[in-house]
Amino acid sequence: MASQHNANLSAPTAAVLLIGNEILSGRTQDLNLAYMAKGLSDHGIRLSEARVIPDDESVIVNTLNTLRHANTYVFTTGGIGPTHDDITADCVAKAFNVGIDIHPEAQSILLSYWAERDVEPNADRLRMARIPDGASLIENPVSAAPGFCVENVYVMAGVPRIMQAMFDSVLPSLQRGAVINSVSVTCDLPEGTIASPLRALQAQFPDVDLGSYPGKLDGKYKVSLVGRSSDADQLQRVEQALHRLVESAGGNVLG
Amino acid sequence: MASQHNANLSAPTAAVLLIGNEILSGRTQDLNLAYMAKGLSDHGIRLSEARVIPDDESVIVNTLNTLRHANTYVFTTGGIGPTHDDITADCVAKAFNVGIDIHPEAQSILLSYWAERDVEPNADRLRMARIPDGASLIENPVSAAPGFCVENVYVMAGVPRIMQAMFDSVLPSLQRGAVINSVSVTCDLPEGTIASPLRALQAQFPDVDLGSYPGKLDGKYKVSLVGRSSDADQLQRVEQALHRLVESAGGNVLG
Repeated sequence: MASQHNANLSAPTAAVLLIGNEILSGRTQDLNLAYMAKGLSDHGIRLSEARVIPDDESVIVNTLNTLRHANTYVFTTGGIGPTHDDITADCVAKAFNVGIDIHPEAQSILLSYWAERDVEPNADRLRMARIPDGASLIENPVSAAPGFCVENVYVMAGVPRIMQAMFDSVLPSLQRGAVINSVSVTCDLPEGTIASPLRALQAQFPDVDLGSYPGKLDGKYKVSLVGRSSDADQLQRVEQALHRLVESAGGNVLG
Repeated sequence: MASQHNANLSAPTAAVLLIGNEILSGRTQDLNLAYMAKGLSDHGIRLSEARVIPDDESVIVNTLNTLRHANTYVFTTGGIGPTHDDITADCVAKAFNVGIDIHPEAQSILLSYWAERDVEPNADRLRMARIPDGASLIENPVSAAPGFCVENVYVMAGVPRIMQAMFDSVLPSLQRGAVINSVSVTCDLPEGTIASPLRALQAQFPDVDLGSYPGKLDGKYKVSLVGRSSDADQLQRVEQALHRLVESAGGNVLG
């Protein structure tokens, strides 16, 4: 809503860039976006957009450059493994116009990890230690191969468990905005019945982002009326108003 | 991969545009992209990218104009309900610079549906009959309120069950490209062990898009080696080569 965007003009924003043919072919159901979206929201960072793009160098480079100039932060997932289709690190180096080479610390982390597990280092495995010049590393507590950060771009693995650990380790270091909290009132009324009073409520509270999301609960129709705002007082008043709205329209609050 | 894109230069492409604050806030896990990605792939349409954007007029209008000029088809989901936050239809009209008004057929469909269910029509409900000038309707067999198509843009509901029905009804009418089939060989070898022969195999079959996707199977590590191509003969040869590759590297094919 326009109101939400106005309220956050000076607040940090982020874009998410999911890199991988497997998502665009329908082979893989992405779970990373929702995880990051929730974490960013809880941290007061507004997620302005997300994009899913293929493992294609020019597309990755161009999209990354667009997003990193338009947002406080960019988070990428996918394409940093040892195989030939893992081209994200090289693309990030190209986007920033810097070199890329074996990073001594990344190499040392990987060599220790492999030594403990009797894994033989080889040229392909060591590709995972290739990091753009000037980047800092992001720890990978699951399988050692680190992510990295160049300026405002955080480059993470695509495997959800690894991505989540990397994201969790990065999040506390990011700029905090006003946290957008939410209230949700779920009821059994059709959207068409409550649309008019909901619109009036939105007009009364322009700084609260009011949304209406139909769905099912225990197999029965329901609609969730959700208010989001950084203003806790207004949010509480909206929650009370939503309860009154449902009762006035002859409905029942569920759950 | 470059090879895949070269192979499909003359083939139809699509972009998916998911519209909704609820996805960017982490409230809702999107399921629509994977469904469309699979359907498009099976139909021979290459999904070039997907974007998730907020319920913000200028963002929707600008993104839609970018995507519709760059792709054969654009599929949007979300924002066509009766409430104040449903602004997609108006944004589509604005993007195409056409008017928007009550569509007689859409109104008639909705009035019949409501009459059968003793639902009272009101101004908010009738918002769902507002359709950009010149659009054709997309049937909604679940809850009547139609989607619509303007030129190469297909505008659908965000509720997965409704979106899927709309998408399924539209898909047969779309231009068919060469269908990209896939073969998948899952094994218990680390990616670092097979990266080198996999790279050699990719070089040998430049028109097959070879990917390597690590994950878990019954709690144990596995990696799926996936080949995608419109050339069935090459794909079969790649599948046989993948089996040999796993055996030569001392691994077991799983599943």
